[in-house]
Amino acid sequence: MSYDLVIKNAEVVTASDSFKADIAIEKGKIAAVGKIDARDSKTIDAKGLIAIPGGIDVHTHFDMPFMGATTADDFRTGSAAAIFGGTTTVVDFAIQKRGEALKKALDTWHEKAHGKSAVDYAFHMIVVDLPESRTKEMDAMVKEGVSSFKLFMAYPGIFMSDDATIYRALTRTKENGGMICMHAENGGVIDVMVQKALAEGKIEPKYHALTRPMSAEAEATRRAIALADMAGVPIYFVHLSAGDALDEVRRARERGQQVFAETCPQYLYLSYEDYERPGFEGAKFVMSPPLRPKGNEERLWKGLLRNDLQVVSTDHCSFCMKAGEGKPGKELGKKDFSKIPNGAPGVETRMLLLWDAVQNGRLTANRFVELTSTSPAKLFGLYPRKGHLSPGADADIVLIDPKKKTTISAKKHHSAADYNPYEGKTVAGAIHSVFLRGERMVQGDAMTGSATRGAFLRRAPRS
Amino acid sequence: MSYDLVIKNAEVVTASDSFKADIAIEKGKIAAVGKIDARDSKTIDAKGLIAIPGGIDVHTHFDMPFMGATTADDFRTGSAAAIFGGTTTVVDFAIQKRGEALKKALDTWHEKAHGKSAVDYAFHMIVVDLPESRTKEMDAMVKEGVSSFKLFMAYPGIFMSDDATIYRALTRTKENGGMICMHAENGGVIDVMVQKALAEGKIEPKYHALTRPMSAEAEATRRAIALADMAGVPIYFVHLSAGDALDEVRRARERGQQVFAETCPQYLYLSYEDYERPGFEGAKFVMSPPLRPKGNEERLWKGLLRNDLQVVSTDHCSFCMKAGEGKPGKELGKKDFSKIPNGAPGVETRMLLLWDAVQNGRLTANRFVELTSTSPAKLFGLYPRKGHLSPGADADIVLIDPKKKTTISAKKHHSAADYNPYEGKTVAGAIHSVFLRGERMVQGDAMTGSATRGAFLRRAPRS
Amino acid sequence: MSYDLVIKNAEVVTASDSFKADIAIEKGKIAAVGKIDARDSKTIDAKGLIAIPGGIDVHTHFDMPFMGATTADDFRTGSAAAIFGGTTTVVDFAIQKRGEALKKALDTWHEKAHGKSAVDYAFHMIVVDLPESRTKEMDAMVKEGVSSFKLFMAYPGIFMSDDATIYRALTRTKENGGMICMHAENGGVIDVMVQKALAEGKIEPKYHALTRPMSAEAEATRRAIALADMAGVPIYFVHLSAGDALDEVRRARERGQQVFAETCPQYLYLSYEDYERPGFEGAKFVMSPPLRPKGNEERLWKGLLRNDLQVVSTDHCSFCMKAGEGKPGKELGKKDFSKIPNGAPGVETRMLLLWDAVQNGRLTANRFVELTSTSPAKLFGLYPRKGHLSPGADADIVLIDPKKKTTISAKKHHSAADYNPYEGKTVAGAIHSVFLRGERMVQGDAMTGSATRGAFLRRAPRS
Amino acid sequence: MSYDLVIKNAEVVTASDSFKADIAIEKGKIAAVGKIDARDSKTIDAKGLIAIPGGIDVHTHFDMPFMGATTADDFRTGSAAAIFGGTTTVVDFAIQKRGEALKKALDTWHEKAHGKSAVDYAFHMIVVDLPESRTKEMDAMVKEGVSSFKLFMAYPGIFMSDDATIYRALTRTKENGGMICMHAENGGVIDVMVQKALAEGKIEPKYHALTRPMSAEAEATRRAIALADMAGVPIYFVHLSAGDALDEVRRARERGQQVFAETCPQYLYLSYEDYERPGFEGAKFVMSPPLRPKGNEERLWKGLLRNDLQVVSTDHCSFCMKAGEGKPGKELGKKDFSKIPNGAPGVETRMLLLWDAVQNGRLTANRFVELTSTSPAKLFGLYPRKGHLSPGADADIVLIDPKKKTTISAKKHHSAADYNPYEGKTVAGAIHSVFLRGERMVQGDAMTGSATRGAFLRRAPRS
Repeated sequence: MSYDLVIKNAEVVTASDSFKADIAIEKGKIAAVGKIDARDSKTIDAKGLIAIPGGIDVHTHFDMPFMGATTADDFRTGSAAAIFGGTTTVVDFAIQKRGEALKKALDTWHEKAHGKSAVDYAFHMIVVDLPESRTKEMDAMVKEGVSSFKLFMAYPGIFMSDDATIYRALTRTKENGGMICMHAENGGVIDVMVQKALAEGKIEPKYHALTRPMSAEAEATRRAIALADMAGVPIYFVHLSAGDALDEVRRARERGQQVFAETCPQYLYLSYEDYERPGFEGAKFVMSPPLRPKGNEERLWKGLLRNDLQVVSTDHCSFCMKAGEGKPGKELGKKDFSKIPNGAPGVETRMLLLWDAVQNGRLTANRFVELTSTSPAKLFGLYPRKGHLSPGADADIVLIDPKKKTTISAKKHHSAADYNPYEGKTVAGAIHSVFLRGERMVQGDAMTGSATRGAFLRRAPRS
Repeated sequence: MSYDLVIKNAEVVTASDSFKADIAIEKGKIAAVGKIDARDSKTIDAKGLIAIPGGIDVHTHFDMPFMGATTADDFRTGSAAAIFGGTTTVVDFAIQKRGEALKKALDTWHEKAHGKSAVDYAFHMIVVDLPESRTKEMDAMVKEGVSSFKLFMAYPGIFMSDDATIYRALTRTKENGGMICMHAENGGVIDVMVQKALAEGKIEPKYHALTRPMSAEAEATRRAIALADMAGVPIYFVHLSAGDALDEVRRARERGQQVFAETCPQYLYLSYEDYERPGFEGAKFVMSPPLRPKGNEERLWKGLLRNDLQVVSTDHCSFCMKAGEGKPGKELGKKDFSKIPNGAPGVETRMLLLWDAVQNGRLTANRFVELTSTSPAKLFGLYPRKGHLSPGADADIVLIDPKKKTTISAKKHHSAADYNPYEGKTVAGAIHSVFLRGERMVQGDAMTGSATRGAFLRRAPRS
Repeated sequence: MSYDLVIKNAEVVTASDSFKADIAIEKGKIAAVGKIDARDSKTIDAKGLIAIPGGIDVHTHFDMPFMGATTADDFRTGSAAAIFGGTTTVVDFAIQKRGEALKKALDTWHEKAHGKSAVDYAFHMIVVDLPESRTKEMDAMVKEGVSSFKLFMAYPGIFMSDDATIYRALTRTKENGGMICMHAENGGVIDVMVQKALAEGKIEPKYHALTRPMSAEAEATRRAIALADMAGVPIYFVHLSAGDALDEVRRARERGQQVFAETCPQYLYLSYEDYERPGFEGAKFVMSPPLRPKGNEERLWKGLLRNDLQVVSTDHCSFCMKAGEGKPGKELGKKDFSKIPNGAPGVETRMLLLWDAVQNGRLTANRFVELTSTSPAKLFGLYPRKGHLSPGADADIVLIDPKKKTTISAKKHHSAADYNPYEGKTVAGAIHSVFLRGERMVQGDAMTGSATRGAFLRRAPRS
Repeated sequence: MSYDLVIKNAEVVTASDSFKADIAIEKGKIAAVGKIDARDSKTIDAKGLIAIPGGIDVHTHFDMPFMGATTADDFRTGSAAAIFGGTTTVVDFAIQKRGEALKKALDTWHEKAHGKSAVDYAFHMIVVDLPESRTKEMDAMVKEGVSSFKLFMAYPGIFMSDDATIYRALTRTKENGGMICMHAENGGVIDVMVQKALAEGKIEPKYHALTRPMSAEAEATRRAIALADMAGVPIYFVHLSAGDALDEVRRARERGQQVFAETCPQYLYLSYEDYERPGFEGAKFVMSPPLRPKGNEERLWKGLLRNDLQVVSTDHCSFCMKAGEGKPGKELGKKDFSKIPNGAPGVETRMLLLWDAVQNGRLTANRFVELTSTSPAKLFGLYPRKGHLSPGADADIVLIDPKKKTTISAKKHHSAADYNPYEGKTVAGAIHSVFLRGERMVQGDAMTGSATRGAFLRRAPRS
């Protein structure tokens, strides 16, 4: 039998199993796994390399206007960062403007992404304006493959929805199979704290964190869980950062409620202490929720082990420190922390930061695959097309060289951001090759595939 | 030595001790307790009777306009109901109107009460409109002896405060020694549920309960606890009804946070099932929070034993079923449960309903005294003047005859309500006599003291 | 390429993934999975059938003398029951006699099993006599592939070890990589209860359950967890039955302790109420721990979902009701429940009882595979040889026909027991074929392979 | 009216109330409290002094042989230490010898105490040998006023009872109204740890603590709670030291089980770190359970506030460091920590150590009285004779001078111990006077009453 490509001798890791095998690829899909007769096929030798399903990052913001700035990365640079980092699919966020139809917002984002992405992509829809009259638009979105909606309990006046709106949106997903993704922080309290801090002359970056306490996240998490429970639908928490918020998720799951949550590498590897770096450097880490005090990360690692956290995504939302190319940077907030654009790059470093945890014994390799690919695919309607290495799946494959090490640096990253939050950190493993639907996109430092190969993915509703 | 009055041979019960003693009274205060030489004094023989400190009900609504109606009881009938029921002090609620100064609201309530009360009284202040500019009025209130403020998380558009406002109010009590009393129900969700029910033609009284689920109370309780924690101040929950809300209180107290809560007899003795009584009878029990399903009350009793609930008050807020004397009644909501004035009478029955629990072995007599008098006095700045039977305290004394029984009925109660929620229920014990500051106000069925003896009490701030 | 056998068109289910594929088998192992060119190979068409890894039952008792009787099943009938039920590997228990060397006990069990088993088998070692001087024998056992040891906190005077002994054994596994498997019930208390019941003339089967309360299991579970924690080693609980015991396991796991537990189908599907069947029929269900009251099973199902229970085994320990072939039966206890041989058959029904839960929506098919095969293999040193369907694994494969139904009955089962606890129960699915190391052993009702093909498996120590 | 004595102008503190009053005493009892006409009576002016009920220490060991030594204090010196420290009642432990009738043990202790005590005293009975045949002796003890029994889960071969025995004893108290007091530490595990430590040459005092981990106490506590639950009776834990053990008590109480516990000042004020004092000094603190690591005490303080701990006793069990007067001292264990007699003095310092917590704001004065006098009296059948300052109670009164300070030192203490664990510590408050049944026993440093005034107290059974 002849295949388009056979990857030979790989150490294949799935969400449950580990074994040595060849991987045969045909028409962009995995045809067979095992001892493959590759005599008539093109082959790549993967001896000594780990083969995992391509990473799926369900939380990126490319080409997003926010807080008077625009993200450093658009779909070109953002997707390049993704693919070099071992991520082959992203789910980005289309954003409704106040008064705008959801369809309009989706069109806008299709335009931003179309023909510019190196990775396959899908969209969540950020809903900011949802009177009763507009709820049926959610159903249409689900039918178009945009089967999840992000709401905010923070940013009053900008993104924040009140409890009645949230409850209405949750209720609607009972019928249309959508999933609500929640940014859970109590924006009302935070705003009072921010105003008070500024009034007292507290303007440095660290006050961003000090005015967004863990309590504000835990409270909102508990509230959203209650609203979802009353509506009788599942709910998904984005970028969960606080151990206390995780406790709320855990309690709900123990009761049997369908509550899901992601955390991000920054909450596992960085901490509040980074805000106290000299000068304005803390601004690099200004994001919401903020980094938490040291010790908190241990609770998150435990949540990953206990499956109270099911996904690791990035909330990639990159801003340059300095203005450039007509885009203002984090410097906007030099004299007022509340004006620093919130967000940081992450899509490029997620996979290796987590793989490092495998080699350090924190996670099994199987759990790594589950957190970075299989679970996100299942939760967001991409499975079985994406998220695994079984026959029939898209041949999105990452080869990791476990014997090498990688040092993270803005000097060589592919994001357009002018800094990297992990600058200088060395992690175990290196991305050897990345395949998207059977095509080798990346080999070491080189882009070997078409940088615009990425296609839009219609996601299935919850089943 | 001669005293104004000596009550002989009583079985005295305090919040911690029980003993046989005479009680000597002088100038309205307790002068001595023990074996008293009463040869030169007026005496009353209390052999076989239990002497307890006069009941303190920290949650009544007399002469209150609400939902297009006015409570059946003003200070005359309400205070008469109180004193006949063994309660010698009430803390009622003055209500700010939107845009109104707090001082103005207090003046209004002083007018309603002055010269009309048979029991001593104090006020909480219900705050509905609290822009930053008005917060300093809270300090003035505390100085006038109104050292607690009620806020609502329910009734959007009427009483509801948003989280930012609540947080500001809590923060203010850090400085002025006030205490925030919270009505914790998520009003936003409830309103959506109510609209949905009405749209579906669900108009009967029971839908009042079905659109105010326990979750909505538990959520709001947890939220308010978080806000108080962030503000670093104590908080008090009024009329806690749901076991799940109690769990939140318990968890906070276990962490060491200063969280307090009252429940009411209706949540201990009545249940959701009462809403399913035939016809419109369920309207008698329409109050917020609503009665909860059978079984819930056991969790509240446990909370009383574990001291996670510190107070039993009544939320006395009486409306007649039928209109009369120019006042609309519960009939307002005959075709729409959401128009039924919320509330029910309770101040007259609280003491014996709880005492019944003593004779049935659910509570110790000491705990009964603590819940109905000592704890409320301590929490709300009335101690040591009120709340105990030690020398120096006001001689507010109730004599209970433990061998008699009392059957509750609207036919003989003193409230102006035209029904009693406990109609026909027989409880252990009977009120034998009630003394207010040394004067016997009530003897069995007869008012023996001045029905306007009650005076305003300035309460101390938190210490 | 030619293979020994290709199973075509199966719906393959692994612990994480589900996909349609052919399975190629060579030399008893899985060679490849996917689209296989089977032109030169023997093929079996599995269209419409589910292919799962062969079941692994880590808790069976074949040919065991106990309580004056001997189990109905020896390795011949027991392993036949296993293979017809879709189980291709069992881990049975060798039993040390008092004063006997562990090696001697192992030899005895090798003799019982050798050349008589239709399924592959391994052994745990039941240790009843472990003075300090004998602990080094545990190390030798681990080296012989018997890397787990069962201890009892029940059956004083027969199997029970005291806390000092348990702690010593646990400590020893820190060095030798063994795992302690615990029967957790407080035997001391149970014995007092049993004696009291008998003294009061309570002799019927149901008193077996009434004298072994959930508390006795929860207590022992908590105690063993504490001992393992102090020793710093993992621990595994066999046949966990009580929700309260599960709570202890859950709490330990939340703290991060390595605690594992299995439950059995009888605790998921049967209940205390079965003891109240007329006459002596309740004896069929006399086992330890006993069946628990209805409602308890829901807590176990939740434990399976939350991964606080990782394994479903059977504790297959069959006794006939009536004596026969020289073996006494459960009738031994007709006048004294404490003399009823403890145990019931189960190895034959486990897989379909659990599969039924898949078709009823209680479990995902992936979780089913994990619970019945992958997890037991990983926990007990059989992985990667057993427990999955990836290339390189033993070709132990079960084909389930999901469209058929199966009615359980002693009339057609292969165990030598004269009754079946699930008599008459109909479950979704039917075992279509069972393969052991590439050989089709079972096809429908027929044994198509060698009934003595089973081989001893040396298990690896914990890693 | 004339009284035997009137204490004028005291600040009286009860378990619930605080007020200024005179206390009139007649025939050793409190006759009246309040404004007392004392013209014809002997008076003592207590202006500026706090009057509290005499301390009740329900855990002392006077004249006890243990571990090859005998306590430094007999009833003469022990009771002198008590009365000088503000304690007017002790409950000591009579100890059954193996094979001895309980009555015999009681006689022995009556002899030790009779005519030698400055304080009133009662006995618990330590039961070490309780075959079924002897359980009825427990009933006889209760009738003699010895209504509580101490059992040990530690000290195998000496005091330890197995679970069957404990369960039998608990069951017996269901009928006779006795209460089981439990020393909860898993003796089996501890013994293995001790032997291992000694074998490794670890002989210093600190290994006493390192071989008795918190887990061993928490486990035993949980086990005893389960046994009591199965028996359906209350249980009381002596000298609870570990936060984890407290968690078990808390959980049981939350479920509604009647579980009670005391802690001791040493667990509140001292810590593991004291074992690391230079040389052999750590031996001063060798007691069981041992002192716990710093931080643990905060959990106990929280337990005192939450009423999960109801009593503070001392476990006064004094041994001299050096041998003397024919008594071996702690030096016995100089080369083997396991031979250090376990115990330390405490009865003299309890009241002021706890009062210090009042002045430092940790406890209210009312809670102090409850913990040191009212609760122990109620729990152990001494109420209403002891434990409060209400009319009718024994006039056991302590006057504390809150403006003075006291420095603790062996140089001035009245125990026969040659050291004090709190040497040099200064606490707020000083004992001004101590009255036992109306007689002033102590005035400052002077014994002003009869040092043998103490009488045996028959305690009532549980009601």
